Amino acid sequence: MKLVRYIEKMRHQEVWGVLDGQSVYKLLGDPLGDWQQGEEIGPLDHQQLLAPCRPRKVIAAAINYYGATDWEESQTEPVFFLKSPTSVCSAYSTIVSAFDDVPTWGEAELAIVIGKTIKEAQSFEEAESSIFGYTVANDASCENLGQRDHHLARSKAADTFCPLGPYIDTEYDWHNKKIEGWHNNTLVRAGNTDSLFWDPIRIVKELSQWMTLEPWDIILTGSPPLTCPLSYFEDGDWFVGKVEGFPDIRSSFQQSRPISAGAREKFSMQKASDSGSQRIY
Amino acid sequence: MKLVRYIEKMRHQEVWGVLDGQSVYKLLGDPLGDWQQGEEIGPLDHQQLLAPCRPRKVIAAAINYYGATDWEESQTEPVFFLKSPTSVCSAYSTIVSAFDDVPTWGEAELAIVIGKTIKEAQSFEEAESSIFGYTVANDASCENLGQRDHHLARSKAADTFCPLGPYIDTEYDWHNKKIEGWHNNTLVRAGNTDSLFWDPIRIVKELSQWMTLEPWDIILTGSPPLTCPLSYFEDGDWFVGKVEGFPDIRSSFQQSRPISAGAREKFSMQKASDSGSQRIY
Repeated sequence: MKLVRYIEKMRHQEVWGVLDGQSVYKLLGDPLGDWQQGEEIGPLDHQQLLAPCRPRKVIAAAINYYGATDWEESQTEPVFFLKSPTSVCSAYSTIVSAFDDVPTWGEAELAIVIGKTIKEAQSFEEAESSIFGYTVANDASCENLGQRDHHLARSKAADTFCPLGPYIDTEYDWHNKKIEGWHNNTLVRAGNTDSLFWDPIRIVKELSQWMTLEPWDIILTGSPPLTCPLSYFEDGDWFVGKVEGFPDIRSSFQQSRPISAGAREKFSMQKASDSGSQRIY
Repeated sequence: MKLVRYIEKMRHQEVWGVLDGQSVYKLLGDPLGDWQQGEEIGPLDHQQLLAPCRPRKVIAAAINYYGATDWEESQTEPVFFLKSPTSVCSAYSTIVSAFDDVPTWGEAELAIVIGKTIKEAQSFEEAESSIFGYTVANDASCENLGQRDHHLARSKAADTFCPLGPYIDTEYDWHNKKIEGWHNNTLVRAGNTDSLFWDPIRIVKELSQWMTLEPWDIILTGSPPLTCPLSYFEDGDWFVGKVEGFPDIRSSFQQSRPISAGAREKFSMQKASDSGSQRIY
């Protein structure tokens, strides 16, 4: 099943849908239980898509690809942090930063969607059975303030900092899939899921040893390595996340307050007029 | 109103209650809207209490008391991080650590409970009007792994790492209130809300500039300064949080796997047999 959520045009309500071919159909029933495919609604790109679920928890892994920033041969586990459930938005939303003192960037990631409550999984099979499916996420992030806020709420959890979708694929095979992040016309991150340090099943098994995972919880599996120096968003920029087997996700970026001159200098940002303005998306 | 949640004995359901004097009464209706006080259930300490709400987001401030660990005169804001909604438990729950490689401690804090959705508050009045009430929290924490995980999911978000309650007081005046954390028979943290760097209203106003706050979201306001070197929990220890105007909250601690010898050495932990076994609670 390819599960979407969208706003129903007549009733302005948030509803579930199923993507079949290029068309969305109503989902009747419970997507985690008994459901049926209802009437055809229309093409995916004609719908007002929402994030494909409304998670209570968004967990994210960092330093989880061999060769990622801060990777160390001696590390025994990735780093885990939390994003806010209110940071979640649709796969095509605008990422908005209200911070004038730190710049923002994007990260394309494969995300796990939990379908069954799990705690202290005893086997990889048990861990895998709690996974409902997979989707694509952008772990939008901004710089930390005075080296005090890395991976914390200010840098990782602002509204719109977690575009997600466009759908949850319950039959997705996560092995050997290319992942790319594009900032405007530049490939900024690239990798393959075969280079994950902890794969999705291992992540779920290990996390469940100390944290109950619940239906619709989302786990971002980490960003593949940079292919060039970290590039910050300027107002009007685009970020595209490509995870093989899914449609691209694509966000524009809005700086709701301009970055201060001091922050531009501190983070060695070019003037907006100097940055590439050619866009391929 | 003093709002509690508890498990109803006959039906084994989670329900709302109102504390009036020493007795709990049924709450009929919506605690955030129209409600009435129903029949008397019995004394508070005879109820199977739950955390007083079920938040979707638990935000926490760090370095938010003058003189707290890592406090700097030059700082312009506290640090904010997220705890997991599944870390929340009742005010009298056992804190359980499944980590054998890092020790755990407790922090007594005043917590804000949001009652109305708020985004980009334009005034302190607007920020204050979104606050439903206050409660007491223990920001249970464990050491970071290899200096990579401070304030992140592993150290702050495990199940049971956020005891909360025993009730939400909607008429609580947070000014000039003593806060103390006791580990067994030792006062380990002490302060007064008048020494908060950002007070509760300021926290809500500032957070809302970049993060939508929703009903039942919880915001921990930070731990007062240590009164002695950081003291780690041993299996069987107790932690008591005292916030003036509320009953004490009290957790026992359980180490579900023993701390490894290597971790004991790394964190300079005494052997369990050397630690104080006299307990005043």
